[in-house]
Amino acid sequence: MKQVYLDNQSNTQMDDIVFNAMLPYMKQYYGNPQSIYSLGQISKDAIEQARLSVSKLINSKPDEIIFTSCGSESNNLAIKGFAYANSNKGKHIIVSQIEHFSILNAVKSLQKDGFEITYIPVDDKGFLLLDELKKAIRQDTILVSIQYANTEVGTIQNIDEISKIVKEKNIVFHVDAVVAAGVIPINVAESKIDMLTLASSVIYGPKGVAALYIKKGIYIKPQIDGGVQEFNKRAGTENVPAIVGFGVACDLAMSEINKNYEKIINLRDKLIEGLKSNIEYIYLNGPIENRLPTNVNFSIEFVEGESLFLLLDAKGIMASSGSACANKSLKISHVLTALNVDVAVGQGSIVFTLSKYNTEEEIDYVIAEFPAIVKKLRSMSPLYSHFVETGKRLKAGPGTDYEHNHCHL
Amino acid sequence: MKQVYLDNQSNTQMDDIVFNAMLPYMKQYYGNPQSIYSLGQISKDAIEQARLSVSKLINSKPDEIIFTSCGSESNNLAIKGFAYANSNKGKHIIVSQIEHFSILNAVKSLQKDGFEITYIPVDDKGFLLLDELKKAIRQDTILVSIQYANTEVGTIQNIDEISKIVKEKNIVFHVDAVVAAGVIPINVAESKIDMLTLASSVIYGPKGVAALYIKKGIYIKPQIDGGVQEFNKRAGTENVPAIVGFGVACDLAMSEINKNYEKIINLRDKLIEGLKSNIEYIYLNGPIENRLPTNVNFSIEFVEGESLFLLLDAKGIMASSGSACANKSLKISHVLTALNVDVAVGQGSIVFTLSKYNTEEEIDYVIAEFPAIVKKLRSMSPLYSHFVETGKRLKAGPGTDYEHNHCHL
Repeated sequence: MKQVYLDNQSNTQMDDIVFNAMLPYMKQYYGNPQSIYSLGQISKDAIEQARLSVSKLINSKPDEIIFTSCGSESNNLAIKGFAYANSNKGKHIIVSQIEHFSILNAVKSLQKDGFEITYIPVDDKGFLLLDELKKAIRQDTILVSIQYANTEVGTIQNIDEISKIVKEKNIVFHVDAVVAAGVIPINVAESKIDMLTLASSVIYGPKGVAALYIKKGIYIKPQIDGGVQEFNKRAGTENVPAIVGFGVACDLAMSEINKNYEKIINLRDKLIEGLKSNIEYIYLNGPIENRLPTNVNFSIEFVEGESLFLLLDAKGIMASSGSACANKSLKISHVLTALNVDVAVGQGSIVFTLSKYNTEEEIDYVIAEFPAIVKKLRSMSPLYSHFVETGKRLKAGPGTDYEHNHCHL
Repeated sequence: MKQVYLDNQSNTQMDDIVFNAMLPYMKQYYGNPQSIYSLGQISKDAIEQARLSVSKLINSKPDEIIFTSCGSESNNLAIKGFAYANSNKGKHIIVSQIEHFSILNAVKSLQKDGFEITYIPVDDKGFLLLDELKKAIRQDTILVSIQYANTEVGTIQNIDEISKIVKEKNIVFHVDAVVAAGVIPINVAESKIDMLTLASSVIYGPKGVAALYIKKGIYIKPQIDGGVQEFNKRAGTENVPAIVGFGVACDLAMSEINKNYEKIINLRDKLIEGLKSNIEYIYLNGPIENRLPTNVNFSIEFVEGESLFLLLDAKGIMASSGSACANKSLKISHVLTALNVDVAVGQGSIVFTLSKYNTEEEIDYVIAEFPAIVKKLRSMSPLYSHFVETGKRLKAGPGTDYEHNHCHL
C-alpha cells in the first residue's frame, strides 16, 4: 500500500547525510568526552563542532548553546530553571494560551510553588494579542515565554514585536522554537531573544537530542544535577552520536532552508487548495499569511477527527488528529479552543505536517482519496443527514444533542 | 599505535547486535509512538518490547520501568521526584558518602529547599557502615538512596542487608545501579528495592537512554512536564532507536551475564596481580571480595594521577584518573576521601574499567608498559628521591611540604 507520512511535526525522517555523520560516533568513537585521552577528545571535539553548528542556525555564540535530550526538557529547563533561579526578583510569568504542553505543564507545576501565571489569549488565527501582553506585564514579571510558531495550526508569531514589548520592560524572553527552528530563519541576536528551545527530530536529525540557547548573563538552575557537563547546566553522559547528528542537521537546515521552504510551501498550498475545492464545509484553522510552510490544519464539519484519522490511515495516509479527547466528553484541543473554533466543527479536525521528503504525487494522492473518506463518514452521520434534510445544525457539547462516548485519543 | 580502552565505566563500545537492532528505527521506522497509525504503532510496540527486556533484567513488572535520557536524569527523578511528591511525610533523606554526583548534587539541591540530608560513611573498602545507617534513620526519614556498586572503587554493597534495615522502617529505598545492572545479577523483587536506576551505555547499549524502575504504588513528581509519555512520569518525544537498543542490550546482558562475568573478572584479577607484582608501593583501592568484575583502582605512591594518565594515553592505554582536582590544591576524589585513603598516596590513583571486549593480550600490554611509566614518573619526583635517600615520606596537603599547582582534571 502507498504510504504517505504527513505527521512531521515532531518526528521527521532522518536525512542520510545526518545518519552517515553519526555512524562513526556510534561504532568506533565511543570515548567519554569528559576524558582527555585521544578517543575522548574526538567525542569532545565533535560535540563542540555540533554546538557551533546549532549556534550558527540561530545566530548565537556557541557557548550559549546547551544540549538536552528533547524539546520538552529544554522548555522545562528554560521555564523552571529560570524561575527557581530568579524568584527573588518576582514570581510572575507570562505565557500564551497556545503553548506546547511542556510549557503549559511546566508553569502549572510552578504555580503549585507560588508562582503566578498569566495566559495571554490569541486571535482567531492564533496570533498573540499584543495589547493583552502589554496589560499583563507587572512589576514582578520575571519571564515571558511565547512560542515562535504553533505546532498545531502553524501560526508564526510576530516575535520581533513581542520581543520589543518584553524587552522594553527588561523582562527575560524565552521562545519555544521547536517547530520553527530550521524551517524558517531565526536570529536570536536581532530578535533580542534571551532563551530559545530548538530540537533535532523536527529537522531531519536524530531523536533524543535538543538544545536550549541561553544568552550570556542569564542564570538558570540546572534541572538535572550531577557532573560538570554542558557548562554545569545539564549533567549526564553526553549523547555524542545524537549531538553530532543534530549539528549536521542544523548545517543542512541552514544550507537548504530556502529550497525546502519553497518546496514545502508549494506542497502545503496545493494540499490546502485541493482539499478546499473538493470538499464542502471545510475550514482552515490558523492563518494563510505567516503560517509555517509545513502545517495544514482543517476542521471538517459533520465528521469526527478520530474516524477521519483512522480511514486516512487505512489508505496509508498518516496524519494527526487535531482534537484531543478527554473525559469521554466532547472536547477539542486547547489550541483550537483558544482560536475560538466551534466545538462541534473542531471535532472533525485533522493536522497534516509536511517535510522535504513529501512529493507532489503524495499530495495528489491525499487530494484524490480525501473527499471519498469525508463522504463516507458523512453518510454515517446523523448530524449530516439532519443538516441535509433541514438545513439546520444541531447543537453540540455535553448535555446537548450531540455528545460522544467513544473518544480515545 | 595499540589502543587499549579501559574506561568503560560510563561509555562502553556498542555491541553490533544492539546497533543492528536500532538501525531500522533510525532509518525507516520514524513514526511517532504516540500515534495510532501503523508507523507509530511499530515505534510503540518496539518501546514496549524494550520495556519488557529492561524489566526482565531486574525482575520488575514492565510498567514499573520508565525511560529517561541518562543515569543522571534517572537519579535526579528518583531523588527529587520522590522528595517533592512526599515532603508532607518528612524531609529527611539518607545517602552514602560515596554516591555518584547525580545523587550527591541532587540532595544538595534539595537541601536548599529545606530537606535534611544524612551522609552515611563507609569503611576503608567502601562498604556502608550499617550501624551508622540504623542510627541515622529518623521518624521523618522518607528516602534512603544507596548505590548498588561504586563506579570508582567497585565496591558492591550488601544491598539485601541494607534493604532489610530500610524496609523494616517502611522507608522508600532507591538504588543507583548504573554500573552494576547487567554486570552482576539484580533482583528488585527479592531485594525489596523500591526504585532503581540503570543505564544503557554501560552495558554495550547506546548513549542517550537510561531507565528508572519505580515500584507500583510509589508516587513521584515528574521532573520534565509536558505530554503523556512514560505513564505521565517523563514527558518528551521518545528516543525510539536508543530505547530499542537499550532493550536489546538488556537481553544480551541477561544471556551473557555469567560468561562476561567470568571473562572480565579473570582479566581484572590478572591486571591486579600483574601490576602489584611488578610495582612497589602500589595499593588497591576498594575490596577484593564483592568488587565489580569490571573495576581496578590503584593508588601508586610517588606519582601523580594526571601524569600517569597522560603517559598511559601516550601508550594508547585509556584509563581514568582517580583523583579529582579542584582549587589547584592537593585533593583526592570524594570516594577515596571516604575510604580514608592518604591524600598524598591518593594523588597517584588510576582507574581501569574493563569490558567484554578487552582481551588478555591487552592486559598483558598494560602490565608490560605500566612499570616503566611509573619508573619514569618516580625518577622525576622529589618526593620519591627524598624517600629513597632517607626512607622517610614527606607530608602532603595544603600548607605542607607537598602541594600541587598544576592540577587540571
